[in-house]
Amino acid sequence: MQLDSRLEQQIAFILEIDKLKQVFRGTYLLDETRKENDAEHSWHLALMAILLCEHAADPNINILRVVKMVLIHDLVEIDAGDTFRYDVERNKTKAAREQAAADRIFNILPTNQAEEIRLLWDEFEAMETPEAKFAAAIDRLQPLLLGCHTQGRAWREYGVTADQILDKMKQIAEGSEALWQYAKTMILDAVEKGYLAKGDD
Amino acid sequence: MQLDSRLEQQIAFILEIDKLKQVFRGTYLLDETRKENDAEHSWHLALMAILLCEHAADPNINILRVVKMVLIHDLVEIDAGDTFRYDVERNKTKAAREQAAADRIFNILPTNQAEEIRLLWDEFEAMETPEAKFAAAIDRLQPLLLGCHTQGRAWREYGVTADQILDKMKQIAEGSEALWQYAKTMILDAVEKGYLAKGDD
Repeated sequence: MQLDSRLEQQIAFILEIDKLKQVFRGTYLLDETRKENDAEHSWHLALMAILLCEHAADPNINILRVVKMVLIHDLVEIDAGDTFRYDVERNKTKAAREQAAADRIFNILPTNQAEEIRLLWDEFEAMETPEAKFAAAIDRLQPLLLGCHTQGRAWREYGVTADQILDKMKQIAEGSEALWQYAKTMILDAVEKGYLAKGDD
Repeated sequence: MQLDSRLEQQIAFILEIDKLKQVFRGTYLLDETRKENDAEHSWHLALMAILLCEHAADPNINILRVVKMVLIHDLVEIDAGDTFRYDVERNKTKAAREQAAADRIFNILPTNQAEEIRLLWDEFEAMETPEAKFAAAIDRLQPLLLGCHTQGRAWREYGVTADQILDKMKQIAEGSEALWQYAKTMILDAVEKGYLAKGDD
């Protein structure tokens, strides 16, 4: 009965992660009717990673590992909630909340799969391997795209400036120079169009 | 400027597919507050494929190809809309609507990527390769799981019976015998609990 109990654990995890569809982010959908949730965001990242991998800094990147990373990277938010990138207060407690969530959620899986997902999530968070750097680049580019194509609505709501965004987005360069150039152009364009305030300087 | 124009086409496609987040399905989320959309469903399938691939009928399955297939399999519904599996009338026009959608949407991408996605989608639709059979199995198992864990709410809304479900779900066996056994047990259990009417016989 080893297989049955293993499959039961896998199904329990699959049911648990349905909750990610109700974790909402700061970003608006392009039609601006509502904000995006983590499941939608993760799906979008997975397809972006597949379609944009030719632009990765490392041409020998393992794309399946990148896809796995982006599919699981937000699961901890089922317990820890979404932390908007520019929310200073909530970012102070983010790491502790997310570690506790990873311990609970990943361990619903059979041990070897719980360990694999944990390693992938730790790798994503550390942003050191070529795969994690590319995943992080895509994870930054996606909300930037949505922001620029919704007249910066979420940024204006949260009072985010171009300087803050440039500071967070420069990480894209480590995953892909081409995507960083594209991102920089978009940010300057958003300032020019008045979607984004320049900043303090 | 080859790279720039290629990247522009890729970004145009990435923006277009944001619409999948607003294509709603027949299935309820587990918390029953609303129905699920195609982007969430595709994300769920991708993770299920990764976690359940040890149960695939073919042990040498290419999991990256399965994941790509499930990530893109519903994109045509941006134009064609969702067709509930048990809606007889709408299923008559489904193929034509979806072919036209594939022609428009995939061709936003650079030619080589448009061709790759089209081949993947054709492969998924044909359900002949081991990868397509496993993807189809997961695509059936996921709404069955949500149905069984929401007291069959969507089935009762649409008047779907156990016989109809068993008929559609038997395809799971071609992708995975273990998942088919699990699915069958769930369906019989749903009948016993009164979530699902037995059928005509």
